[in-house]
Amino acid sequence: MSTYDLIIRGGTVATAGDTFEADVGIKDGRITALGRDLGEAEQMIDAKGMLVLPGGVDAHCHIEQESSTKIMTADDFYSGSVSAAFGGTTTIVPFAAQHKGQSLRAVVQEAHERAGAKAVIDYAFHLIVSDPTEQVLGQELPGLIKDGYTSFKVYMTYDALKIDDRQMLDILSLARTEGAMTMVHAENNDVISWLSERLLSRGYTEPKYHAVSHAPIAEREASRRAIDLATLADAQLLIVHVSEPGAAKAILEARNQGLEIYGETCPQYLFLTAGDLDRDGMEGAKFCCSPPPRDKQAQEAIWRGLTNGTFQVFSSDHAPYRYDSSGKFKAGPNPTFKKIANGVPGVEVRMPLLFSEGIGAGRLDINRFVALTATNPAKIYGLYPRKGTIAVGADADIAIWDPDWERTLSIDILHDNMDYTPYEGRTVKGWPRTVLSRGRVVVADEELQVERGSGEFLERQPEIRRLTPQGQQAELDPGRTFGADLM
Amino acid sequence: MSTYDLIIRGGTVATAGDTFEADVGIKDGRITALGRDLGEAEQMIDAKGMLVLPGGVDAHCHIEQESSTKIMTADDFYSGSVSAAFGGTTTIVPFAAQHKGQSLRAVVQEAHERAGAKAVIDYAFHLIVSDPTEQVLGQELPGLIKDGYTSFKVYMTYDALKIDDRQMLDILSLARTEGAMTMVHAENNDVISWLSERLLSRGYTEPKYHAVSHAPIAEREASRRAIDLATLADAQLLIVHVSEPGAAKAILEARNQGLEIYGETCPQYLFLTAGDLDRDGMEGAKFCCSPPPRDKQAQEAIWRGLTNGTFQVFSSDHAPYRYDSSGKFKAGPNPTFKKIANGVPGVEVRMPLLFSEGIGAGRLDINRFVALTATNPAKIYGLYPRKGTIAVGADADIAIWDPDWERTLSIDILHDNMDYTPYEGRTVKGWPRTVLSRGRVVVADEELQVERGSGEFLERQPEIRRLTPQGQQAELDPGRTFGADLM
Amino acid sequence: MSTYDLIIRGGTVATAGDTFEADVGIKDGRITALGRDLGEAEQMIDAKGMLVLPGGVDAHCHIEQESSTKIMTADDFYSGSVSAAFGGTTTIVPFAAQHKGQSLRAVVQEAHERAGAKAVIDYAFHLIVSDPTEQVLGQELPGLIKDGYTSFKVYMTYDALKIDDRQMLDILSLARTEGAMTMVHAENNDVISWLSERLLSRGYTEPKYHAVSHAPIAEREASRRAIDLATLADAQLLIVHVSEPGAAKAILEARNQGLEIYGETCPQYLFLTAGDLDRDGMEGAKFCCSPPPRDKQAQEAIWRGLTNGTFQVFSSDHAPYRYDSSGKFKAGPNPTFKKIANGVPGVEVRMPLLFSEGIGAGRLDINRFVALTATNPAKIYGLYPRKGTIAVGADADIAIWDPDWERTLSIDILHDNMDYTPYEGRTVKGWPRTVLSRGRVVVADEELQVERGSGEFLERQPEIRRLTPQGQQAELDPGRTFGADLM
Amino acid sequence: MSTYDLIIRGGTVATAGDTFEADVGIKDGRITALGRDLGEAEQMIDAKGMLVLPGGVDAHCHIEQESSTKIMTADDFYSGSVSAAFGGTTTIVPFAAQHKGQSLRAVVQEAHERAGAKAVIDYAFHLIVSDPTEQVLGQELPGLIKDGYTSFKVYMTYDALKIDDRQMLDILSLARTEGAMTMVHAENNDVISWLSERLLSRGYTEPKYHAVSHAPIAEREASRRAIDLATLADAQLLIVHVSEPGAAKAILEARNQGLEIYGETCPQYLFLTAGDLDRDGMEGAKFCCSPPPRDKQAQEAIWRGLTNGTFQVFSSDHAPYRYDSSGKFKAGPNPTFKKIANGVPGVEVRMPLLFSEGIGAGRLDINRFVALTATNPAKIYGLYPRKGTIAVGADADIAIWDPDWERTLSIDILHDNMDYTPYEGRTVKGWPRTVLSRGRVVVADEELQVERGSGEFLERQPEIRRLTPQGQQAELDPGRTFGADLM
Repeated sequence: MSTYDLIIRGGTVATAGDTFEADVGIKDGRITALGRDLGEAEQMIDAKGMLVLPGGVDAHCHIEQESSTKIMTADDFYSGSVSAAFGGTTTIVPFAAQHKGQSLRAVVQEAHERAGAKAVIDYAFHLIVSDPTEQVLGQELPGLIKDGYTSFKVYMTYDALKIDDRQMLDILSLARTEGAMTMVHAENNDVISWLSERLLSRGYTEPKYHAVSHAPIAEREASRRAIDLATLADAQLLIVHVSEPGAAKAILEARNQGLEIYGETCPQYLFLTAGDLDRDGMEGAKFCCSPPPRDKQAQEAIWRGLTNGTFQVFSSDHAPYRYDSSGKFKAGPNPTFKKIANGVPGVEVRMPLLFSEGIGAGRLDINRFVALTATNPAKIYGLYPRKGTIAVGADADIAIWDPDWERTLSIDILHDNMDYTPYEGRTVKGWPRTVLSRGRVVVADEELQVERGSGEFLERQPEIRRLTPQGQQAELDPGRTFGADLM
Repeated sequence: MSTYDLIIRGGTVATAGDTFEADVGIKDGRITALGRDLGEAEQMIDAKGMLVLPGGVDAHCHIEQESSTKIMTADDFYSGSVSAAFGGTTTIVPFAAQHKGQSLRAVVQEAHERAGAKAVIDYAFHLIVSDPTEQVLGQELPGLIKDGYTSFKVYMTYDALKIDDRQMLDILSLARTEGAMTMVHAENNDVISWLSERLLSRGYTEPKYHAVSHAPIAEREASRRAIDLATLADAQLLIVHVSEPGAAKAILEARNQGLEIYGETCPQYLFLTAGDLDRDGMEGAKFCCSPPPRDKQAQEAIWRGLTNGTFQVFSSDHAPYRYDSSGKFKAGPNPTFKKIANGVPGVEVRMPLLFSEGIGAGRLDINRFVALTATNPAKIYGLYPRKGTIAVGADADIAIWDPDWERTLSIDILHDNMDYTPYEGRTVKGWPRTVLSRGRVVVADEELQVERGSGEFLERQPEIRRLTPQGQQAELDPGRTFGADLM
Repeated sequence: MSTYDLIIRGGTVATAGDTFEADVGIKDGRITALGRDLGEAEQMIDAKGMLVLPGGVDAHCHIEQESSTKIMTADDFYSGSVSAAFGGTTTIVPFAAQHKGQSLRAVVQEAHERAGAKAVIDYAFHLIVSDPTEQVLGQELPGLIKDGYTSFKVYMTYDALKIDDRQMLDILSLARTEGAMTMVHAENNDVISWLSERLLSRGYTEPKYHAVSHAPIAEREASRRAIDLATLADAQLLIVHVSEPGAAKAILEARNQGLEIYGETCPQYLFLTAGDLDRDGMEGAKFCCSPPPRDKQAQEAIWRGLTNGTFQVFSSDHAPYRYDSSGKFKAGPNPTFKKIANGVPGVEVRMPLLFSEGIGAGRLDINRFVALTATNPAKIYGLYPRKGTIAVGADADIAIWDPDWERTLSIDILHDNMDYTPYEGRTVKGWPRTVLSRGRVVVADEELQVERGSGEFLERQPEIRRLTPQGQQAELDPGRTFGADLM
Repeated sequence: MSTYDLIIRGGTVATAGDTFEADVGIKDGRITALGRDLGEAEQMIDAKGMLVLPGGVDAHCHIEQESSTKIMTADDFYSGSVSAAFGGTTTIVPFAAQHKGQSLRAVVQEAHERAGAKAVIDYAFHLIVSDPTEQVLGQELPGLIKDGYTSFKVYMTYDALKIDDRQMLDILSLARTEGAMTMVHAENNDVISWLSERLLSRGYTEPKYHAVSHAPIAEREASRRAIDLATLADAQLLIVHVSEPGAAKAILEARNQGLEIYGETCPQYLFLTAGDLDRDGMEGAKFCCSPPPRDKQAQEAIWRGLTNGTFQVFSSDHAPYRYDSSGKFKAGPNPTFKKIANGVPGVEVRMPLLFSEGIGAGRLDINRFVALTATNPAKIYGLYPRKGTIAVGADADIAIWDPDWERTLSIDILHDNMDYTPYEGRTVKGWPRTVLSRGRVVVADEELQVERGSGEFLERQPEIRRLTPQGQQAELDPGRTFGADLM
């Protein structure tokens, strides 16, 4: 029996911390050695001149998920996972989304059914909790956390999904006690609906008014409120898809104080602006997502947030709705901005875009790139050390990048099931040539190399954190008589 | 016909801006001259060695008001206004409080009926808007503003009173358009009710847990949110009874940015602490108010807020519930902290407390004292220049203070209808000897000198402000295509 | 003997706190009454439709002062004081400037000689301390403070004037002990000289490089350092001619913390930009002053500072150097930016500019205008209540403004001894028609009405402040064993 | 020839990014493989149950260095490097210190002579630049940078060492151009000398007044100033031995803005307080260092700075002066606080203290510990990837830690040449059992295993950074006409 099944030879390995030249030895789907001249194995991949990076972890993507208005994403677990793989991502964490009245267990069961037979890379599920009944809080959620679903997302906006502050405290407190991570879509629902109604009543209906109705202050306010609630509950919290400098600042200030608040941003907030929503005709609909892209100044602030400690996670928020009556125009051919399906695709371009404009333009180094796209999300969501790094013992989920491969983005070269990309025509430099999942070559020679359904579900472990000095106690005890009692 | 009906001779006059020695000449209830040696008039008051100050404007007091739980304040317009006058206050602005389902007009009518026959000093009414129906927003409120009720208060907490963010935007926007001032009780209701339930379910029922349940973060969060909403609506806003450094900081930062955000604080946040709620037995109930007193560090921050530009207004929030079954214990003799009537009295001691500890201890100068207690509230609420200053043309509402009069506070020396004062036993230095309202001597020689019902209602003028560059436009317009359109 | 020598009838009086209609009665040079219908006096001035304001106090102007490079200002005490009066200013506080090696006493003596025979309005002197020898600190300065010279300015830049941090601590500490006010020109000298040398060595010599060499960071840094030193010495401090948002922010933050830090700004930072230094040929020299005008964004921040509590004082920093070989080009006809005489004139236009763009454009109300231009400087520099307000007992220093008088600024209409104004061609609305000093009409009918030398010197009283909790003690005592000992 | 000379078997490897179980294969002094079951080598070290960490990099220590007052450190390169090694440190970067008038080249030559024959671990040199003459700036320094001395330290305090702001700009600018790193001791010299003189003149001479004279504001002010100067020069900067929350905050704010400002702290600011300087008799002298230890609150802030992004580097600032006439009391037996030799030892306890209280008490995770003590200093000072990590290709500088080894600190167990440790009696848990340098076992079985002089000098490469958008350009160019020109 040979020492390795496969050796990636002669590349430059980069992790979140280190960069070094080494062969990567793989056995039984795991990395078993990193070394100089590891010798020969049955399968050899030449990585000379290439970057050998951990496969990406896309911790925010909507795959084969139905919205509350019954619009199904264009991508199912096959096209979604294939598209991810072609972009260098080897783990996705889409959502098992509860709609009001549904059982979380049932929702999870359905997600498994959808993913199991189709995914070509590994996956876990975040839960979406929109109806935190006593049953959900008392039984389903604690049980699901123990069973490996250790993260969930809540919404502060969307009438069909939003929870109120009290429900959020219940959930944060439960997450704190049971060892889970809460993610939040932070926008003030009342602000958005108040503005929307005013806009519509005055005849402002075009796509661009989507960005107006989702005012920056709506995101800023809700982000600060969410941080306050997490502080009270002494719970960790991750604010997803941050688009706005004020929200970013709130996260950074919380982190500066030592609170366990995390932030995520996405390509649309680095590469698009609200101006894109004002393109001719209904073209703006292609760029409608929530929060919306902002302005150039906001882009700069979000870029800075990738290096100054604000953001730990860079995800796609892939939400694929086609530019046709199955997606964007489900409500009709000329919808008001309120009726356009919300979301942009991005699971495949997420990493190439950041690589090209981040590393290429000198904004990020390679280790930070790896941390943002793979290691940090793996750590934060309990997938590490199995996923997210190149280290002895880790799954051999590896993307071999050609840093000089220049490509012009176009829907034609992408593998999702969409009919447009918001980044059409943009040129990027750097793309993975070969992608491995658990040692299996998934992508090579611009072709998919594996069967549908060969991806596996990733069960995770809850992790209960220490009580911090901030949060709970400080706020709850005027005379220092109790504290943990209230948890 | 003599030049003056009355001359106050030889005192030191102080206004918000100036301090000078002058006689004050009064004719037909108004100040008609300030001068050296104004001569003789029929009525002469010797103010040698005294401070001649504008009568106070207490812009936050609950008089003859019934709570949603049907507890009537101990003070009616007679005892309430008499008590105010004895403390140097010559204008009160209590509330015409709408409960859900009520007509605002009816509420105002009732307030007039209560006040008209009893008040001994002049008064205006703030409205409390708890049920902003289409009828209220579309007709009643605009009409009432035009009729002189140019300020209203909203609540972010109390189940029976609170409005949501969207209603608050409606009200702020209406205030902006019609030229009124919005006041807000800013505490996050969900936080308080979540904490309360947890406390009660674990057996923490004593009065001191009132302060725990009203966590500082509840006030801080709601204050920031209110400021954000006002910023969006480009409306001015006054945050009442600020108790907490984080909320104070939010106000100050908003003001530093040039926003028209105002802040008010009250004696209970300078002189009491949460420790007072932990006194023996049910004694703590005497100090239960919302927000609750905090700690020594918070007191210092609130004091600093009186001089660094955070607070413009110093009110009593007089909410007189007796320490018996008519008030604090309406719900029974040993209520949980949730059932204790909320509020502390203070209309009479408001100014003497601030005078003694503010000027006496060197924290404030006399002009700042006048500004906080009289001039600023008069200006902010549209009573100026008729009230709040000593200037030619102003009503002769004047308190002649003896800066050396040392008194020990006790319920025995006060004139409200209460059975306790939270400041029992505290010694203060400085108290008004003589108090005039429209030239009439209301208090002299420690006796009331006027008849019940001699106070008058003060009608005010709406004032529509310019559009600021911040707020509405900045937030609403991604491409600068519109702005004021949305108002 | 009649009650009043002079009555100003029927105008609208405005002070820092109040606005009211009243006659002003004047006797023996003082205001003795404010009232409705004060009757008749020998001299009557009709102020119907006019604003009756306190005469301005220009607390920062260079009059008949010689620079260290022997350039004498174009204005002597006659032209300087006349020009001030025509612009509504009735008190000036120029400098008695010590150059290295000089005795402060001698410098003061000389200032008196220059002013006594020429000034047409009243004046005091700030000292400039550039050589704080033992003699100066131990004897001259304490003696001069006792004699009524209770303020002095120090420089952190200019090789001939600057003191180091240790000397500044000596001076601040002395000011604290003796009851004086320290003013500081805060720019980092090393930064400026380092940049200047680099600029010159690379051939960047035109006037516009003056603004480059005086980088914003030089002002920001020195301002923060000065605040730190004052905090350590527990001394009050006023930072003069603030041009830069970062410096303004440092002042505001200090004030927010309750420190006694004051700020001043000037017309050049509201109405000029660095772009003016880049006008054709040597025209830019007309706008060279230190700190230099900045950009539009800085202008906005400085405007905001006039209302948000940053700045208390608005002065001219009148530094009149003609655009000829007596002034700007003393060093030759085509000097490098380092050799151009530094300073712009403004004593006459200071108040009209602020009135027109401040009140006219809705940025300030009339009371804030009065506070900034008259009352605050009078209070801060110990001239109040004699100067700076309209109150019983104050000197009758009054400017009667016609708010509708529209004028186009031009050197032709000004009364200083300059050959240019940096505001040439700008139209302003609002200008004083009649100006009184101690009841004497100084300006009327666009003509000067008094003799040279009729102004008087103003002696001031030292004022020793309480020890604040911040500053000295907090920093000096690790174990709370001493504190005031070090003062 | 076998594949590996040495294998460390079965330990848990931790780097700044990852934690994994692996054997470490070493060949020719370098790590050549990390893997599961790497097989056998001639030399095998069993690391079961142990942590296999990169050897520490102590980037701030004074070894065989003479002060300007001619006090030689107690440790020479032998005892200093041995002590370092016993504490898990395998690279030291002491100083080649220029005193005024000296040639930098000569100083470097002398440092080599001292170190070459004695050091048992590898070393580099920071330069100390105290006399930046034209010769030094124009020739010596650029030459030395090219020769591998790519970092230097400057002092803002100490009369014999300090440079002024202009010299600092020269040095920062040179560092920026030549690709070096500037370190700064940031305390305001004038503040310290002013306070010291006052203290002494009033008879406050005991050791504890050392802490008073080095007021927090002196450090805060100088830190902010240094950051401003670096911003202007667009240069990176590292502020050493930060003790004070305000200075820490300034660093964090700069980093939040994306500036390349780094911070270092040391054990004395986590484990000692100013109270230690107040021990009986002259005992306080043992704790005199600059900046001095502060209070408990400052300790907490410094701890927080280790995780919130403020500090990248944790060094010892080992400055070994014995508690006798060779060190602390060189100036006599009862010196005033100004005459006590400044500095505390710590090269050996640096890592065990942080391990025990950082990881043990849950304040840090193991990866952050590695980053702070090894990887970050290696990266920042150009020693990476040779030093500071466990990666293929890196030097086999490894410390094998026993996380359960509990020891009571005492001068008896340490290997420096001191007669005291400031941490006497403190118990720590976790200490390295075996330490390797370039694959050689340096420490094992509590014994030194190598010869004196077996350490090697580490030459480094200059690294010229991109021009950032902040700094130089922004400040230098009012009209965007030039920028890089000035560098």
